[in-house]
Amino acid sequence: MSWKVESKSTDIATLLQEESLFFNGNGYMGIRGNLEEGLPSDTNTIRGSYINGFHDIVEISYGEKLYAFPENQQKLLNIIDAQGIEIWVGEDKHREKVSLHSGKIIDYTRILHLDKGLTERRLHWRSNSGHELNVNFKRFVSFHTKELFQQYITLTPISEDIPVRIVSSVNGDVKNFADKDDPRVASDDEQLLAITNLLWIDESSFVEVETTISKLRAAALSTVSVSDKSASYRYEFNHSSIQTTIDFTLSRETILEKRTFIADSRRYQDLQYTLQLIKDKTASLSFKELANLQLEYMTSFWKNTDVTITGGDKIQEAIRFNLFHLLQSAGQDGKTSIAAKGLSGEGYEGHYFWDTEIYLLPMFTMTNPELAKKLLHYRYSILDSARERAREMGHKNGALYPWRTITGTECSSYYPAGTAQYHISADIAYSYVQYFLATNDLDFVKVMGAEVLIETARLWLEVGHFHQNGEFRIDTVTGPDEYTAIVNNNYYTNVMAKYNLQWAIKFVQFIQSEDPLHWQSLKSKLSLKDSELEAFQSAADAMYLPIDKTLNINSQDDTFLQKEIWDFEGTPKEHYPLLLHYHPLTIYRYQVCKQADTVLAHFLVEDEQPEDIIKESYNYYEKITTHDSSLSSCVFSMMGARIGYLEKAYDYFLESARLDLDNRQGNTKDGLHMANMGGTWMAIVTGFAGLRLKENGLHFRPQLPEQWEGYAFHIRYHGRLLKISSKMDSFTVELLSGVQVDLHIWDKKHTITADSTLVITN
Amino acid sequence: MSWKVESKSTDIATLLQEESLFFNGNGYMGIRGNLEEGLPSDTNTIRGSYINGFHDIVEISYGEKLYAFPENQQKLLNIIDAQGIEIWVGEDKHREKVSLHSGKIIDYTRILHLDKGLTERRLHWRSNSGHELNVNFKRFVSFHTKELFQQYITLTPISEDIPVRIVSSVNGDVKNFADKDDPRVASDDEQLLAITNLLWIDESSFVEVETTISKLRAAALSTVSVSDKSASYRYEFNHSSIQTTIDFTLSRETILEKRTFIADSRRYQDLQYTLQLIKDKTASLSFKELANLQLEYMTSFWKNTDVTITGGDKIQEAIRFNLFHLLQSAGQDGKTSIAAKGLSGEGYEGHYFWDTEIYLLPMFTMTNPELAKKLLHYRYSILDSARERAREMGHKNGALYPWRTITGTECSSYYPAGTAQYHISADIAYSYVQYFLATNDLDFVKVMGAEVLIETARLWLEVGHFHQNGEFRIDTVTGPDEYTAIVNNNYYTNVMAKYNLQWAIKFVQFIQSEDPLHWQSLKSKLSLKDSELEAFQSAADAMYLPIDKTLNINSQDDTFLQKEIWDFEGTPKEHYPLLLHYHPLTIYRYQVCKQADTVLAHFLVEDEQPEDIIKESYNYYEKITTHDSSLSSCVFSMMGARIGYLEKAYDYFLESARLDLDNRQGNTKDGLHMANMGGTWMAIVTGFAGLRLKENGLHFRPQLPEQWEGYAFHIRYHGRLLKISSKMDSFTVELLSGVQVDLHIWDKKHTITADSTLVITN
Repeated sequence: MSWKVESKSTDIATLLQEESLFFNGNGYMGIRGNLEEGLPSDTNTIRGSYINGFHDIVEISYGEKLYAFPENQQKLLNIIDAQGIEIWVGEDKHREKVSLHSGKIIDYTRILHLDKGLTERRLHWRSNSGHELNVNFKRFVSFHTKELFQQYITLTPISEDIPVRIVSSVNGDVKNFADKDDPRVASDDEQLLAITNLLWIDESSFVEVETTISKLRAAALSTVSVSDKSASYRYEFNHSSIQTTIDFTLSRETILEKRTFIADSRRYQDLQYTLQLIKDKTASLSFKELANLQLEYMTSFWKNTDVTITGGDKIQEAIRFNLFHLLQSAGQDGKTSIAAKGLSGEGYEGHYFWDTEIYLLPMFTMTNPELAKKLLHYRYSILDSARERAREMGHKNGALYPWRTITGTECSSYYPAGTAQYHISADIAYSYVQYFLATNDLDFVKVMGAEVLIETARLWLEVGHFHQNGEFRIDTVTGPDEYTAIVNNNYYTNVMAKYNLQWAIKFVQFIQSEDPLHWQSLKSKLSLKDSELEAFQSAADAMYLPIDKTLNINSQDDTFLQKEIWDFEGTPKEHYPLLLHYHPLTIYRYQVCKQADTVLAHFLVEDEQPEDIIKESYNYYEKITTHDSSLSSCVFSMMGARIGYLEKAYDYFLESARLDLDNRQGNTKDGLHMANMGGTWMAIVTGFAGLRLKENGLHFRPQLPEQWEGYAFHIRYHGRLLKISSKMDSFTVELLSGVQVDLHIWDKKHTITADSTLVITN
Repeated sequence: MSWKVESKSTDIATLLQEESLFFNGNGYMGIRGNLEEGLPSDTNTIRGSYINGFHDIVEISYGEKLYAFPENQQKLLNIIDAQGIEIWVGEDKHREKVSLHSGKIIDYTRILHLDKGLTERRLHWRSNSGHELNVNFKRFVSFHTKELFQQYITLTPISEDIPVRIVSSVNGDVKNFADKDDPRVASDDEQLLAITNLLWIDESSFVEVETTISKLRAAALSTVSVSDKSASYRYEFNHSSIQTTIDFTLSRETILEKRTFIADSRRYQDLQYTLQLIKDKTASLSFKELANLQLEYMTSFWKNTDVTITGGDKIQEAIRFNLFHLLQSAGQDGKTSIAAKGLSGEGYEGHYFWDTEIYLLPMFTMTNPELAKKLLHYRYSILDSARERAREMGHKNGALYPWRTITGTECSSYYPAGTAQYHISADIAYSYVQYFLATNDLDFVKVMGAEVLIETARLWLEVGHFHQNGEFRIDTVTGPDEYTAIVNNNYYTNVMAKYNLQWAIKFVQFIQSEDPLHWQSLKSKLSLKDSELEAFQSAADAMYLPIDKTLNINSQDDTFLQKEIWDFEGTPKEHYPLLLHYHPLTIYRYQVCKQADTVLAHFLVEDEQPEDIIKESYNYYEKITTHDSSLSSCVFSMMGARIGYLEKAYDYFLESARLDLDNRQGNTKDGLHMANMGGTWMAIVTGFAGLRLKENGLHFRPQLPEQWEGYAFHIRYHGRLLKISSKMDSFTVELLSGVQVDLHIWDKKHTITADSTLVITN
């Protein structure tokens, strides 16, 4: 089955999307899939290179600034552009640039090699004056050497003796992309980077930049050479970039290799020294060897992560494409996470949202728990900020995680759909629990997990209250659905808070019984009183979960069902997404959902409600959900499968699977929709295969869409590696490594022994 | 009884407050009570001169700008400063400036003459080198000649032959005051005025300025002279101001007179020509004559408006002070209204809010209906903007008035406490009805009133909906109480919308019966269908008015009473006003009110609820209201009186009456709290005297606080002038002019015949 994503288009609109689709990254840095030679100057290209979490601080402007509105936000910065390589053919005045928009394209293919972790462009090109050649561009960002962006170009002459000039550049004069009219993209285009160093050193270009306020530094050290020994080199500086010009005559296959090493001051002090060291260390490795290391890394990744689908090539392509980009975007250093657009673009300012915990972590937790742990580690690293934010928001105790952030401080400037989404704290707590259920890693619970859960549980006691009727209620928050804001008793928030409170107690009990000494020290560190734990329990027990008895569904909040239903028939297609065409007050006034809210809650905490309520809720909310958020379709797919709507599940899955590949939201060019990519994996694994992690073990409820012959995927569970396959007549679990384990299939318990295969036939 | 407000303080903090308290205005322009000679340079003086509605347009910044968020707002501009007059005594290097902060103050009094409409400063002063003199500063802004700001200074020597130098200036280099940290004050200090003309012409200084975006122009033409014929004059320009220097020897009483004429391009085209014309026209009038015209105007005002209180000098002072400043601030040209700070300061950007209709119009409607009509005219003049805003907000029909504005477009940038306050449209409709009830001016209903009521009534059909249980409900709005936002079925909003709908129909019926032809033309102008009128009626009949049967009160909104009550005991005094110390989400989460909401609704539409609900509601909401808004205490006073809490009514009245005179909100220096001033009048007239305007006539429920011997006030009713007096043992109504009229006292009907007096003894 295919390991390639291919494109033959030279159409500008497509190439703009491919800047995101073909990006290269390794969790530390991301280089957008821009063309080495650039696009025509009138195109809206977003030429970008990013380091995860590398940001400046910008002031937030408010018409009216109220108490505890964040004063600043972080903003992921586009850093030094080292992608530039121009290839010119011909002499002097007759020189022509090899490009997709000049001369004659005889053949052209662009390939993303999902197995190898690299991208390629194959171009057969003839200049207007008749020089004809093949140019093969390969590039990757190395998983082995996180600082390395590798470009490797093979030039093969077809006509005779072609005069060639290469112009390679490293450019520090870059800005972020701005669009004033789209609230989903940054709106101002200030210059936030200053060039502090521009050196020609040791046959390499060195450019160092510094941000204006945060004073973070980033640097690139870049070398370029061709295999033709007779080539001549020339180096030029201007105030912001360094160019290397190489002239030679192309008469046989010639290799052009450019290696750029990028680092930043969040990781290293002396960037010049560090990059030279890394460069020297890597110098002994040829391109082939580096590409092999990349292949090895990818092979190991796919061993744990690959998902195969029989019967749908487009979908097979999509699912691997998604998994690959998730890997490319995931911070692995415990200091960074996965931004809304990953490292594929700068949309949403490179901020981390709840997306990571609810849509992305499940895949990593179940296939690459070591990496998942790093992402959880990041949330622990910003716990103090969350504590401070809780104080700012008037809470005496607990931690309130920011709606969007890089360094931990709240960066959302529109609180009704930002800070008001208190559920993020419960979402983060939930992800720690899921990690624990998948790994049984009690050490991690002891060192980080329990503290996060206790602090977030404390928040719920602060924000909620016991009503006179005995119910514990949580007022004035916003749930996941951003088309309804500032409500009381959002079902999602309340049920997740309950889970948070319950698991805080469980984590405490585990530690108490496994390591009483550690418990004493943690208790004293957190000044935790036994009465607080009792209050956690009382609040959880009394948690109010709104339900409408007539409709037999959970109400999204206290009053949601009393509002008028949005006039869907009277809304023209071009008025979607609604948030770009209606004032939020208008949208909030109606029963209309941007995305799954109650339905998502039923997925995350399914044992809180009986089947009929889950089903009726799905029926009800589906009718009023616009899916204007890319976080929506995958949830309706998973839960469609859960309640037996296999056709619906499949249709929503299709929406979700190729959302970026088919540019369904129209903004793929701004970056990939990471959460949706994670959601696609979830739609297969938790949707069609029905996987749930519960305290009593793994649960499956496998089903097969009739369009497929079968599907298979891998999961890791308590140190084991399992391969799960579903076919028309059978469901198979192979225990590839690890010891015997129990699992539940359609609620029936099975045991699978070491190195064996369990086959359930229908 | 006193017609003076006096101050002897030279303390800086007090002088800063007096910049507001002693301002001069006439509805067209306002000159703050700055000292001619200025304050020491390190003080936070707000030196300001304003023309009602003279503004520039400034962009509103948003962290995230969503659909239909206003892009710009208007901002009242501080214009040319012509107040400057410095008096220097002594020769050359020994010159000393006469000021409150140098030399020796032997005696000093500042007086606001409420009867004469002018302010005065009497200063007995000696320089360090022994020159001693009396200086008397008089100033007013003329009601007779709206463009005139008159200064009149009498210098009387006490020591012999004092060398005097006068430096009078007209300065175009002015900015608005800015304070980054107070959301109630503007936060940036851009220069928005450019000087376009600086001329010395016809012995006068002429300065013309133009705004940056709106391109409005304002100009000042100023003359200054002394009565000493031997004085020498010198004129100096710099890039932004013109100075006149006058030298003479002060050996007998000498008059210094400065007349500044100010006009703007919203009223006149050629400002230089116009101002010269007005100056010439006024030239024949001496200061005495002009002051007499001012006195005449004031006398006529007080004849209709005066309120007397026997037994409370401080309160007598306050009530006249308030009435005077209301008059000084009220736009009388049909193009302007009354800003939140009147013309006394630039707080709230000079915007007009609902304050005018609910807190200020009652006084004008009942005492100066001609002026009230001009204020209603203003709202009619921006009806088209309100229609446009309704469309922007997604409504197919009707008019949505902006929360804050000058020219009619929405200027609120924080919609939860701005645009969401849909009640403003009902408030405006209400003020038209009240005007009609007071005047029986059906012509005005025909020409403007009906159109406003129909368009606002249409809005309620758009924003509300019929719930399946038959109720008409209005979701997702904010009521008057800004400590609760974006709620469903705010009692105030719903009951006011009902009134709006009912009166739209009544206005239609009046016109239909009085002038069927006019009705046809209006109907066709508004494309009004009969079915709409039926829908008005159905919605009004079915209007849902939330009630809590257990508490026997109206609920502020659907879910207000289910929230936790704010921890008042745990809130330190310095944490008030809450909005400066808590995030709005925190405040919104609790039962806590910034101001009267349901209680105000019970005042405005009292016949909707039985007495017991009104009383219990008062009891309930009083406990949870912080009165952080200056619009609050007066309502609790009026309604306290209404339900028999005379002591409470009196205490709240005291809070309200001297709010600015005693700087109770701590921000009097930014400008006076106009709404509260109107509220003080209401507390007496509608509170203690219990006046209500109903369809069946005037109603009174007179009561007398035990602290007073009596009170009296005037009202106009259907062309009549009445004087109402309340004493311990009697309630007296004198019909000063006009024909016989019925009125209800404690629900009992009485008739008063022409030129007679009705006395009810207790």
